[in-house]
Amino acid sequence: MSLMARTEHALARHFEAACGSGAPPRLVEAMRHAVFSGGARIRPQLCMAVAVACGDTQPELTDAAAVALELMHCASLVHDDLPAFDDADIRRGQPTVHKAFSEPLALLAGDALIVMAYRVMLQAAGGHHQRLALLMDNLTRGVGLPAGIVAGQAWECESAADLSQYQRAKTGALFVSATCAGAISSGSDPAPWSLLGESLGEAYQVADDIRDVMVDADSLGKPAGQDVLHARPSAARALGLEGAIAHFQRLIANAAASIPACACRDMVRQWGQREAERLVPPALCEQARRKQAAGARTAPQLRLVLP
Amino acid sequence: MSLMARTEHALARHFEAACGSGAPPRLVEAMRHAVFSGGARIRPQLCMAVAVACGDTQPELTDAAAVALELMHCASLVHDDLPAFDDADIRRGQPTVHKAFSEPLALLAGDALIVMAYRVMLQAAGGHHQRLALLMDNLTRGVGLPAGIVAGQAWECESAADLSQYQRAKTGALFVSATCAGAISSGSDPAPWSLLGESLGEAYQVADDIRDVMVDADSLGKPAGQDVLHARPSAARALGLEGAIAHFQRLIANAAASIPACACRDMVRQWGQREAERLVPPALCEQARRKQAAGARTAPQLRLVLP
Repeated sequence: MSLMARTEHALARHFEAACGSGAPPRLVEAMRHAVFSGGARIRPQLCMAVAVACGDTQPELTDAAAVALELMHCASLVHDDLPAFDDADIRRGQPTVHKAFSEPLALLAGDALIVMAYRVMLQAAGGHHQRLALLMDNLTRGVGLPAGIVAGQAWECESAADLSQYQRAKTGALFVSATCAGAISSGSDPAPWSLLGESLGEAYQVADDIRDVMVDADSLGKPAGQDVLHARPSAARALGLEGAIAHFQRLIANAAASIPACACRDMVRQWGQREAERLVPPALCEQARRKQAAGARTAPQLRLVLP
Repeated sequence: MSLMARTEHALARHFEAACGSGAPPRLVEAMRHAVFSGGARIRPQLCMAVAVACGDTQPELTDAAAVALELMHCASLVHDDLPAFDDADIRRGQPTVHKAFSEPLALLAGDALIVMAYRVMLQAAGGHHQRLALLMDNLTRGVGLPAGIVAGQAWECESAADLSQYQRAKTGALFVSATCAGAISSGSDPAPWSLLGESLGEAYQVADDIRDVMVDADSLGKPAGQDVLHARPSAARALGLEGAIAHFQRLIANAAASIPACACRDMVRQWGQREAERLVPPALCEQARRKQAAGARTAPQLRLVLP
């Protein structure tokens, strides 16, 4: 079974179990819409890949930790899309939760998904209480204060924010949680896996910045040009498009180099490489380079918004 | 030290520790505003009272569980006050978080408080991993699906909701978590303490409904008449004011009767009685009865909104 198939299977199973019975049906539908709308599932796959590399001695716990990471990610997307933030109408090519259900339900769906992430882990713990505590602590660091994704989002509300600190928190923190969760669920030391999460997380954020200025909304599945619109720190704005692409490729190389020696090193590397090419397709980089070399600042199919 | 003093002390200590260092300063300020604005701290005190009745063998764990309950409660208030829900300008006599800081920060402060609740418990667990898992599961039930306070809030978004199911989830669930947490943190069986939480939680919600129609905004510290305004299910609307007061007093009597035999039964009962009188002062009940007997449907000092 591919990591993607394992992720979807685990998500479907844990989501239903964690809903329990008798919950308000529209809230459950709003949460389902947030979770099952075709996400790339990078974080849970990353968690599973590391777990496999570490022997995956408790696959049930790995699955639960992977699901919890994705639920937290989905919760953050639902809240980010609200009118108070990005005011986005589409996400993954579909109406955002507040557009499809209402603002109150989107707000509550995000809250309920955060709590559900913990519930999923608690339900899967079996007798592994110590491992559970480590996993929950690891997830909590990736989401909360002082440097999790909620803190990352909050840096957008500060008058001064360091680009690297902002990106490490906004995206990197949950990637670090993902690699560490894979190690913890298998009873391994998470520390050697931290750099992989850090590099991939930063690469993912840089890719997002690149895609925000290069790709139209239809291909992106969400509104483009949001960083400029919301005056957000962005690698593409700070480094220029060429610089951002080079930075992205360097981060992917760092990620590959950071993978600890293990029987599955090649598997994890190949997975990372495939994800990198999915995020920033080589053809897209080439196209951007040609356009920029030709001195074109805009093009019919591209929206280049450079600093 | 009174339960109130113990609560404030634990809140201040755990809040600072859980913020860590380097968090976005305005987010931390928004969270501080949400937590330290003069709340009644009923849930954490209830948790502590039950813990004392059960021997309070791990006071550090009791404090952390009590703080976690209050943080969840504060998170729910911050989100409830947002324009998408109650659109409230004041809470506890002060500007609500979104009024004082901004909507994005209020949204994030609520999210961060939910996650902080788990962090506080994780940081206080010491070696008590099994007790920690039980406490986290207990808190998660009180907040999430299928019947925690988030589900309770979501019943307001459904076309049909049962008043008792709605109230049990919206308020009762976290009161049940509070009594059970006190027992669990002391290594006792939580089951015998569940009914106390249930009765007090329902009484508290009924008191809130009564106060919403009887007390002006200045005394309430938040807008009055909200249940009618938002067409919310309300005991005062369903039973009439006299009926709601009688129901409240019955619930308080049930709560007192439900307390399991233990050396501290009187202490817990007295604490409950004091809270009941604070919530619905006997003088207020008497005043309402006289006005109603005299046939007056409105009075200069009272806002009676009867069904």
